[in-house]
Amino acid sequence: MEFALINCIRRLAAGSPSLRVGIGDDCAVIDTPAGPLVITTDMIIEGVHFLSDVPLRQVGWKAAAVSFSDVAAMGLAPEALVCAAALPARLSMADAQEILLGLNDACQTYGVALAGGDTDSTPGGLTLCTTVIAHARGLKPVLRSGARVGDAILVTGSLGGSILGKHLAFTPRVREAVALNSSFELHATIDISDGLSADLNHIVEESKVGAVIDAGAVPISDAARQLAVQSGKPALQHALSDGEDFELLFTMDCADARRLIGNPIFDTPVTIIGEIVESGFFLRTDGKLEPLKPQGYEHLRG
Amino acid sequence: MEFALINCIRRLAAGSPSLRVGIGDDCAVIDTPAGPLVITTDMIIEGVHFLSDVPLRQVGWKAAAVSFSDVAAMGLAPEALVCAAALPARLSMADAQEILLGLNDACQTYGVALAGGDTDSTPGGLTLCTTVIAHARGLKPVLRSGARVGDAILVTGSLGGSILGKHLAFTPRVREAVALNSSFELHATIDISDGLSADLNHIVEESKVGAVIDAGAVPISDAARQLAVQSGKPALQHALSDGEDFELLFTMDCADARRLIGNPIFDTPVTIIGEIVESGFFLRTDGKLEPLKPQGYEHLRG
Repeated sequence: MEFALINCIRRLAAGSPSLRVGIGDDCAVIDTPAGPLVITTDMIIEGVHFLSDVPLRQVGWKAAAVSFSDVAAMGLAPEALVCAAALPARLSMADAQEILLGLNDACQTYGVALAGGDTDSTPGGLTLCTTVIAHARGLKPVLRSGARVGDAILVTGSLGGSILGKHLAFTPRVREAVALNSSFELHATIDISDGLSADLNHIVEESKVGAVIDAGAVPISDAARQLAVQSGKPALQHALSDGEDFELLFTMDCADARRLIGNPIFDTPVTIIGEIVESGFFLRTDGKLEPLKPQGYEHLRG
Repeated sequence: MEFALINCIRRLAAGSPSLRVGIGDDCAVIDTPAGPLVITTDMIIEGVHFLSDVPLRQVGWKAAAVSFSDVAAMGLAPEALVCAAALPARLSMADAQEILLGLNDACQTYGVALAGGDTDSTPGGLTLCTTVIAHARGLKPVLRSGARVGDAILVTGSLGGSILGKHLAFTPRVREAVALNSSFELHATIDISDGLSADLNHIVEESKVGAVIDAGAVPISDAARQLAVQSGKPALQHALSDGEDFELLFTMDCADARRLIGNPIFDTPVTIIGEIVESGFFLRTDGKLEPLKPQGYEHLRG
């Protein structure tokens, strides 16, 4: 279903002359009188993306931060946010304000204008839709489709087990993305929302290349190790396939990657985890290649 | 509840220097390197804004057209649309495509780029969130807050009874709005989504003025007359308080209004229905003023 629907949207969107990049990247890119503008829209739904007992201020924060992360995944900084909210009858005015305060916390932290919204009642669960725009302001929006054979694959932070808490309190890598895009030629970027292997596969498919991940290089989070104890699965598997870490996954020239690792431009850890190859999708363990099946939370995202 | 929440958002949004107009108008207005950009977001929810038996292509069309109407209410033409959809499990791939085709119908009709979206499953009803942006491109975004004492109040088309069908097949007044904003100095504009009296009251409150509506001048639609037979209420009451006609309600200098009526600049009918006064909110019938209570569908809208 996912593939057919995306292709349908792509076919329809192909008719829009001002549309440079449509569905299939973290943001759409629109040509405007002030250069490229990126726009992303995300819905988070009670019972799907968060449970009913999560504090509403955190829900508001997450709704904003998810969209900020999509803009970071274009190498840009979010500029303005609007939010539409479908509110179940059980929520009070004070509840609605908590959501708003959460949105505002995120906007304040990242210098984003909280521009407005739409609030309606719903017979269903709480549903928030955030839309964020950003002008490129001299930077180049980085797509998923630019990875080149020989590129190093890099990731910020550490991965896996976000369900234990990080999925509600992650750091959208806005500052890192802008610093990287200002200092280096990034070839392809994405944020890890579906899971490392699934999101790397998005880059691979859009770029028409292959990839090798070095098992020993993947930065495994403490949460992944903790979750592994509970799940009985290897911590590496959590790091490879858990979603919602919202770390930045990107590819660049090997020489640039070495330069970045040698001379970090920010405090957030960055790790080289593999390389772009001509075709195939592999995990390399002790020098041995095994085919890797992209795994992660499957959803549609434009 | 509505008022307190809007004020909370206004207080929070006041901290954003690039934000020229936040919640409380049809669109937010953001200062960008290319001049003002307007942005609007709207959610339409199954069981609230449309019934489950409405053809999905019409639902998609409405979702887009509602946001186009908000941009028209700023005197501008919509430029790009993104849509997030929460899809109940009962909907098939073919159903999702129907929604998409409806969005595309509207985008094609008004020359808007269908830029992308986000699709998720929901345990609740079908929920679509459309966000539309537009650069002012040399025009001035027209707000609700600019009505002046002595202005004529005008409306496009005819009003009332949209529930009989127009609410799913209305014409967002994009062409009319741009033509008016290009040819005249519009003082205040809004689209009629809540109902004539409720939406005129939004202009009155934002502009800190009053208004008189001439009962005999209100253009009553055939649908309002038809609905009046069913409801037993006067057709005028339907024209005054029914929502979702999505006609353009605007104020301008009396002299300009007479010039417009004398020399129409488009085929859509325009009617002078009253005037802006210092204070109060009145219906004038046969020269007699009666206080008018703003009535209409109440929801929150930013």
